[in-house]
Amino acid sequence: MERRNVGILGATGMVGQRFIQLLANHPWFNITWLAASDRSAGKTYADACKWKLDTPLPKHIAQMVVQPNTPEASTTELPRIIFAALDADIARELEPKFAEAGCAVISNSSAFRMTLDVPLVIPEVNAGHLDLIERQATRKTSGGYIVTNPNCSAIGLVLALKPLEDRFGIDSLFVTTMQAISGAGYPGVPSLDILGNVVPFIKNEEEKMQEEVGKLLGTLDGSSVSPLPAKVSAHCNRVAVEDGHTECVSIKLRKPATYEQVIAAWEEFQPLSGKGLDGLHLPTAPLHPVEYDTAVDRPQPRLDRMRGAGMASTVGRLRPCSIFDWKFVVLSHNTIRGAAGAALLNAEILAVLGKLDFRQFPPLKQPVQVAEAVVKA
Amino acid sequence: MERRNVGILGATGMVGQRFIQLLANHPWFNITWLAASDRSAGKTYADACKWKLDTPLPKHIAQMVVQPNTPEASTTELPRIIFAALDADIARELEPKFAEAGCAVISNSSAFRMTLDVPLVIPEVNAGHLDLIERQATRKTSGGYIVTNPNCSAIGLVLALKPLEDRFGIDSLFVTTMQAISGAGYPGVPSLDILGNVVPFIKNEEEKMQEEVGKLLGTLDGSSVSPLPAKVSAHCNRVAVEDGHTECVSIKLRKPATYEQVIAAWEEFQPLSGKGLDGLHLPTAPLHPVEYDTAVDRPQPRLDRMRGAGMASTVGRLRPCSIFDWKFVVLSHNTIRGAAGAALLNAEILAVLGKLDFRQFPPLKQPVQVAEAVVKA
Amino acid sequence: MERRNVGILGATGMVGQRFIQLLANHPWFNITWLAASDRSAGKTYADACKWKLDTPLPKHIAQMVVQPNTPEASTTELPRIIFAALDADIARELEPKFAEAGCAVISNSSAFRMTLDVPLVIPEVNAGHLDLIERQATRKTSGGYIVTNPNCSAIGLVLALKPLEDRFGIDSLFVTTMQAISGAGYPGVPSLDILGNVVPFIKNEEEKMQEEVGKLLGTLDGSSVSPLPAKVSAHCNRVAVEDGHTECVSIKLRKPATYEQVIAAWEEFQPLSGKGLDGLHLPTAPLHPVEYDTAVDRPQPRLDRMRGAGMASTVGRLRPCSIFDWKFVVLSHNTIRGAAGAALLNAEILAVLGKLDFRQFPPLKQPVQVAEAVVKA
Amino acid sequence: MERRNVGILGATGMVGQRFIQLLANHPWFNITWLAASDRSAGKTYADACKWKLDTPLPKHIAQMVVQPNTPEASTTELPRIIFAALDADIARELEPKFAEAGCAVISNSSAFRMTLDVPLVIPEVNAGHLDLIERQATRKTSGGYIVTNPNCSAIGLVLALKPLEDRFGIDSLFVTTMQAISGAGYPGVPSLDILGNVVPFIKNEEEKMQEEVGKLLGTLDGSSVSPLPAKVSAHCNRVAVEDGHTECVSIKLRKPATYEQVIAAWEEFQPLSGKGLDGLHLPTAPLHPVEYDTAVDRPQPRLDRMRGAGMASTVGRLRPCSIFDWKFVVLSHNTIRGAAGAALLNAEILAVLGKLDFRQFPPLKQPVQVAEAVVKA
Repeated sequence: MERRNVGILGATGMVGQRFIQLLANHPWFNITWLAASDRSAGKTYADACKWKLDTPLPKHIAQMVVQPNTPEASTTELPRIIFAALDADIARELEPKFAEAGCAVISNSSAFRMTLDVPLVIPEVNAGHLDLIERQATRKTSGGYIVTNPNCSAIGLVLALKPLEDRFGIDSLFVTTMQAISGAGYPGVPSLDILGNVVPFIKNEEEKMQEEVGKLLGTLDGSSVSPLPAKVSAHCNRVAVEDGHTECVSIKLRKPATYEQVIAAWEEFQPLSGKGLDGLHLPTAPLHPVEYDTAVDRPQPRLDRMRGAGMASTVGRLRPCSIFDWKFVVLSHNTIRGAAGAALLNAEILAVLGKLDFRQFPPLKQPVQVAEAVVKA
Repeated sequence: MERRNVGILGATGMVGQRFIQLLANHPWFNITWLAASDRSAGKTYADACKWKLDTPLPKHIAQMVVQPNTPEASTTELPRIIFAALDADIARELEPKFAEAGCAVISNSSAFRMTLDVPLVIPEVNAGHLDLIERQATRKTSGGYIVTNPNCSAIGLVLALKPLEDRFGIDSLFVTTMQAISGAGYPGVPSLDILGNVVPFIKNEEEKMQEEVGKLLGTLDGSSVSPLPAKVSAHCNRVAVEDGHTECVSIKLRKPATYEQVIAAWEEFQPLSGKGLDGLHLPTAPLHPVEYDTAVDRPQPRLDRMRGAGMASTVGRLRPCSIFDWKFVVLSHNTIRGAAGAALLNAEILAVLGKLDFRQFPPLKQPVQVAEAVVKA
Repeated sequence: MERRNVGILGATGMVGQRFIQLLANHPWFNITWLAASDRSAGKTYADACKWKLDTPLPKHIAQMVVQPNTPEASTTELPRIIFAALDADIARELEPKFAEAGCAVISNSSAFRMTLDVPLVIPEVNAGHLDLIERQATRKTSGGYIVTNPNCSAIGLVLALKPLEDRFGIDSLFVTTMQAISGAGYPGVPSLDILGNVVPFIKNEEEKMQEEVGKLLGTLDGSSVSPLPAKVSAHCNRVAVEDGHTECVSIKLRKPATYEQVIAAWEEFQPLSGKGLDGLHLPTAPLHPVEYDTAVDRPQPRLDRMRGAGMASTVGRLRPCSIFDWKFVVLSHNTIRGAAGAALLNAEILAVLGKLDFRQFPPLKQPVQVAEAVVKA
Repeated sequence: MERRNVGILGATGMVGQRFIQLLANHPWFNITWLAASDRSAGKTYADACKWKLDTPLPKHIAQMVVQPNTPEASTTELPRIIFAALDADIARELEPKFAEAGCAVISNSSAFRMTLDVPLVIPEVNAGHLDLIERQATRKTSGGYIVTNPNCSAIGLVLALKPLEDRFGIDSLFVTTMQAISGAGYPGVPSLDILGNVVPFIKNEEEKMQEEVGKLLGTLDGSSVSPLPAKVSAHCNRVAVEDGHTECVSIKLRKPATYEQVIAAWEEFQPLSGKGLDGLHLPTAPLHPVEYDTAVDRPQPRLDRMRGAGMASTVGRLRPCSIFDWKFVVLSHNTIRGAAGAALLNAEILAVLGKLDFRQFPPLKQPVQVAEAVVKA
């Protein structure tokens, strides 16, 4: 199978770097386009980016020239699939331009997550919501659309909640997060704020968690999603951890569930089997999206964040709650499962569902000079 | 006023060191006796102890000879007031011996906190519970008794809860802690476990918090305390912070309370004024036991733990809870307000209440050789 | 004695905050003026500053209005003594303006440290260099001048070197630093760069250390300082420590010295006794500017940085070097002894030397509106 | 090729765990035997070990029964190749027993590194020293022997020194280390000692570095190694880093070398090519044992320790030294290249050199019950 060309918007930031790392040897996708802010455009990626990952920057990526971050200004051929790793304010302005141009914009930003016709998707949880794509205005004209993945603090949690919702129903839950510094990007959190410290506040994070859980576990009713009517109360904290968000949960279920039943719900969770997706192998999907660890003091970010190559959600410490039904701890990698890996898995399921094929749509609008170059070549 | 002689059991540990630091220039108390395990007994304190505080070890303490940790084995005169900083297992064995000998044992251990006739006290919260002392069997014979202070994670929380209980009543609460490493003593938490990590488990901590809150806010009914019937659900975590426990709370009150009313309850909390304690000045009591900080990202352990010389509980981020009534964050210094300072404040209120005067009781039983030496001198 | 009015340039930064903390209850000085960049000018200090110290921001300082950072633009009376905590680039532009206006500019910046007629001073090391003040052009016209203190990494080291130079002479030395994050200001070092990491590079730091050591230990020859001809080779690193620079030194002396002689040189170091300064008590001067600790694993930043109220340099681990003569470790607090405390001690010795008296000089040039207000009042 | 059976002595410690991780899918070796102290013997490995690595404990290893740590007490067949990860005191007692029994003991301990007839080897540096094996008394009787790798702080440094010694000769060098906590094992460094701190002392570490550099770069003269007569002065520090030792070096060479020549020496260093080893591929050997990074602020432990799968030594910041010739920074992974990976690479080169073939030696002495079991099976 020929690999599809993809681009990365916001390629120099922390999530952009993770996209490059995860796509470096991807069997289905091939990075042909990188874009970043005006400050970086025109430079080689190696010059524009302060590479902060502990795997080497791939050589061919290092030499690519960073493009301006609009479809019109690109000086090379724009790919039809765009991974977007932009701050919300910038995403709000730029992502629609790429959708209008005809691109599948697979976004990690919060800008459009709660927009009615934009799917907010975790493939193992609510792949069916991807049908919303067909409701987007740009889809009908250019074929382009926007798909989003949840906030880094919501995604690991919702993976753990989904099997419980399926079997027992969720009435309400408290969640307190202890979130890694990489979630704030680079330079992000000043070291003077976090070394030997806890910051009990992350702007807009509690609001995002509370509303995204409802949409992710909600029901697609024709043109929009009816959120799950579960009540969620979130407390969000920043702690001195590089990667991996840890979350303490107290949950009230709609139906009684024993300890063994809850564990079984997690261990038997095989959402990408059956349902027409059977036999599929999404390269980035972990074998077990939820892993339960029986050790009394797990999960821990340093030890468990890389389970499932950073794509699994690890759960532990299931025990009775003196107010609600059960207490447990969830952990997931915030820049892999919680950001770049989440978007990549969305792209993989879109590929399988045929939504990355654009044959029936008009060709991508290219800037004049690129179109000419393409014709010549 | 002449300073009273006091001793410290478990003097070489982290809490023992804090006792020495806080008592170094105390106007009412004078350290004359230090005891520790057999490994240390007979050595000078400087040789027996790995001093880990950032103020210098006082010279006269450095030269004191560490005593064995039983009343009988002491080779110098035993003081009548004993601060005890022992692990629970050892406390369970040793503290009663000192009470039997006639000492006021002011304990930081969990061993007897839930014992029916042992007061568990925060002076600003439930000084009245100290009447339980008179119920203790040893009180009637030797005059000795045991008094305890709460767990380091309960104490800051209960200071913040008390004004709410007084004005609105507490129905139930969730609390998630992020606790400092000093709470585990020395060597305590291995650095490989906590650097860049979170450990979502502290043995017995959740149980202690849940039961101690009830007893502290309970009502003394003659011979025992009826616990407050509020439901408490605790999640306890260890984080990479040196000192200072941060706690996220969601609370359901019995009566409605506005934002302003909750803040006022905290700001007007002056528990040591009036009630017969008026005019008292307890040297270790903070002017404001609960400080509310209006900044959006406070309290933080590194910045706020030393408020009130480490004896205040700082509260912040009061905001509505989507399930219960209110959410907020509490912070207090775990080895000052949460341990040595708590016991010291207990000693101060006992002094004021006359419970450190032993004139009507038989003299302290001394080991033969000490008694002889005392007679000679 | 009436306290002298002082101002702080760059009052909102980390060093500015330390100035406020150290001056809060100073017996000789009284803060009447705070200035910062245009972004802050006009706001109250509380609004302009993100206070990052663990002692409370004094209430009267919180309410002061931040002034613009030039003499002409000030809307309140300019004090004659200015503590300057500016970045080098800005200091280069602004400090001379205040000296021209007639102020004693007591600077923590590197901008003019190596300027021929500007004293670079540690009072315990080279107070005599303060005579250079009289060589400055502004001194002759307005009475104003600039005085500097060394880099935070040089100052603790030079305190330890001075007694060795006095008794044995220094031929050459290697020094490797492990520097705290507070040395980079706020926001300064991103947490992603330093958590669980070492950064083996601090811009210009090695160069500053190498040249400042020479000037500090040099000889004042009329109009300039002949640097000590010792060779210094520095390696500078950033580590995950909040405050306190640790430095490993290997030193070659000019005269042989035994272990006991080296220790004695440090322990007997009483530079502010005698020499006409006898009987002086500089409030910020530590009793022992160099403390030698005999423990095998000291000094350590967390335990030793606050010795002498943050103004002492702690030395330890003296042992033979297999190439040079001796190896040892030095530690000092980088924002107290290494910055704000250093400047404050410079101000104190200037006060004693009469260099903060401006009676024989013309009055300070005030902006028109301030002068008018002053006249009216 | 059939994989050779190997055992691990000290299998539950931090280095033992790394051995298991690195051997898990090794093409040449197969773990069939694990031993640890009496406390662990008889338990399954999963029960005996607190697994601290972020890759999962392999299932078949988890279920293996931990053996007692002497050849006689083993209840299963003893393999002929033993990786030893023991503390020095224990190694001194146990390793010779395994050599006497006929095993190749590939040791990470310091116990016998400086013993005259024991090779201290980094394959890329001094593989020739392995001839010393034939001088060992046990070799002649049972075929068994001991081989050692250097201290974790010496190994990365010597990799960087070897190309310089080969081309320019080394006269003397200063080195200051900033060492990771994993080097102290588990529980190892208490978090209260290292969080936000530096400990400028590691027992015996400076002595080990100084003497091991000489032996590693020395010349094999018949029956022993003449150490390189270079002078080495080491300062060793512990810092708050999980893995990866950073070292600042100042070096004096015997022959002049330009910047370009020094870089070339490192970049052209291909020690496992040629010399009869040509064409060899040692599975654990990095392609480039020394990588020079041109960035101004590299190497850094968090970003560079995993180069060459944790087996490369990264060098950076080459710049002139004001006393010696050159200054630079070296970094290597202390539990991979500095411990388990070092021993594993030693085993690989021993395999290639035929020194893991025991056909000409007597069969391994087995405990009676094992021998019987083997016969039956």
